[in-house]
Amino acid sequence: MSRIAIDVMGGDNAPYEIIKGCVEASKNISSTLVLVGNEQIISEQLKGATYNKDKIEIIHAEEVITMEDAPVQAIRQKKQSSMVIGLKLLKDKQVDGFISAGSSGALLTGATLIVGRIRGVDRPALAPIIPTKTGYSLLIDSGANADVKPGYLVQFARMGSVYMKCCMGVEKPKVGLINIGVEEEKGNQLTKEAFKLLSEDTQIAFSGNIEARDIPSGKVDVLVCDGFVGNVVLKFMEGFGGWILSMLKAEFMRNFKTKFAALLLKKGIYTIKDKFSYSTKGGAPFLGVKGLVVKTHGSSKAQEIYSTIFQTEGFIREGLIEKLESNLSENIN
Amino acid sequence: MSRIAIDVMGGDNAPYEIIKGCVEASKNISSTLVLVGNEQIISEQLKGATYNKDKIEIIHAEEVITMEDAPVQAIRQKKQSSMVIGLKLLKDKQVDGFISAGSSGALLTGATLIVGRIRGVDRPALAPIIPTKTGYSLLIDSGANADVKPGYLVQFARMGSVYMKCCMGVEKPKVGLINIGVEEEKGNQLTKEAFKLLSEDTQIAFSGNIEARDIPSGKVDVLVCDGFVGNVVLKFMEGFGGWILSMLKAEFMRNFKTKFAALLLKKGIYTIKDKFSYSTKGGAPFLGVKGLVVKTHGSSKAQEIYSTIFQTEGFIREGLIEKLESNLSENIN
Repeated sequence: MSRIAIDVMGGDNAPYEIIKGCVEASKNISSTLVLVGNEQIISEQLKGATYNKDKIEIIHAEEVITMEDAPVQAIRQKKQSSMVIGLKLLKDKQVDGFISAGSSGALLTGATLIVGRIRGVDRPALAPIIPTKTGYSLLIDSGANADVKPGYLVQFARMGSVYMKCCMGVEKPKVGLINIGVEEEKGNQLTKEAFKLLSEDTQIAFSGNIEARDIPSGKVDVLVCDGFVGNVVLKFMEGFGGWILSMLKAEFMRNFKTKFAALLLKKGIYTIKDKFSYSTKGGAPFLGVKGLVVKTHGSSKAQEIYSTIFQTEGFIREGLIEKLESNLSENIN
Repeated sequence: MSRIAIDVMGGDNAPYEIIKGCVEASKNISSTLVLVGNEQIISEQLKGATYNKDKIEIIHAEEVITMEDAPVQAIRQKKQSSMVIGLKLLKDKQVDGFISAGSSGALLTGATLIVGRIRGVDRPALAPIIPTKTGYSLLIDSGANADVKPGYLVQFARMGSVYMKCCMGVEKPKVGLINIGVEEEKGNQLTKEAFKLLSEDTQIAFSGNIEARDIPSGKVDVLVCDGFVGNVVLKFMEGFGGWILSMLKAEFMRNFKTKFAALLLKKGIYTIKDKFSYSTKGGAPFLGVKGLVVKTHGSSKAQEIYSTIFQTEGFIREGLIEKLESNLSENIN
């Protein structure tokens, strides 16, 4: 039976919403949930809750890493923080996965320093799933590496391909390089060099450049880019999508006639809304770390923690880390 | 009276839709429109049209620069192309502005080589207006420069500020640097260095980093970024916005009930749609060129050409180029 550790103290809504998500998940999950955080707070909240006692364990953590802490310093100095303790549990194979809604920078640093990298990977990358017209694509990297070398993008492409095959059932994942034109010679220095390397790589199915306007098309399964560009895409999708939905809401609330229209459309609008909430609220693994570290949105509430726990159980069941280890060992540059 | 040259041969819908846009504009505009392209084709189409003969002139161009042409080569070799002839008219002050829906790369190269740069500007930038919750912001650069130096971003910020003050009536335009975090130390090498330079610049009102999720907020008037990131934002907005609207349309068409709802909402939905079509279909000037060169979307139809002609007339009336020249002369680095 697998064990999943959760950083109860990380994120905007910690610890209350994080614990609540664990409580709900405990009722339906087969894994054991290891709640890492202030024992007193956790026990207090659990007292008033209905949960499956066989599925929840508590490990006390004295400290908390905040959004303001400098990542490297925080990981090195706050040894008793919920994040460091959780990552150590993962390193020592006391748990099979670790979830945190805390500082992305600290989590990446901790994952790299404490858990370590898979052989063949220079930089772990954050890889969320984003919605497309035909289903979902993986966006790698979406923020772990602001400055990258062309070779890293090949590693991202390989890791993304393993993920899509192993966890999303895509037999031969198509890889696209996010670029400002489809022709080979288009782009900046990074994408021009990466295009060559990706074209020559035999481990992936590279289908060339993809312009940002085609990201939603679903033409490719793995969208490769540096962490700066990926972060811009992910966050803009969140902000822009949210804005359009809020404009729609305002139109629906305008008067009696439009409110009636909203009622008639309700189900359809929820379908669209759901499609997008997946993108911004689900968890994303740091691919390339020698252990399963899953980052959830800093603003995650119980519902997102609940989803991320089941998502993480899926990653463990599919053996994502083992498959990445066996596929990434070959050297690239 | 001002004169505006239009590249009749550039773009996916040239020459028919371009000429059609000019024909319509001729009825309401005070400027003279100089149609540059194949004289026979233009005359043929004008024969069957109702237009203001006093407002339309034709200048014959034997050649056409296509999307497949390599920019530098095309500008150097196709001296008789509509684009080169139009740019020369601008350089020689025979016209006050030049509009093209043709190849962005060739247009930028031609603008720089033929018309030249404003003193104090290393790289002209493409600067479209994008819709926000509170109005419009300028996105600079949105594709002219895939690789930039930190100092270029300061020039973009200055030019963008002049534009927003002069053409959009914003007294003290707020400048934001698109970044992957709001804190000063966040970002890639480029944005970290640019942050410092922007903070020290006394000619602009720098309000710090802005995350992509806040781009639609309207918090800043000028969004500064390199041309790669800006192009990704602009094209993703186009593709993602289009997708959401198409999903909505599909929901509206689902059955009798939803079609009725669509009818009740019609006006509101068109308001939203209009807000976005401005962003992807309007023209954008290459700021930093010593003459007014306006690029319109490659897929522009008559309606967009019509709008861009009036927009260009506005730029001329406001003296955009002269104001840029007087504000950019001070050296930055």
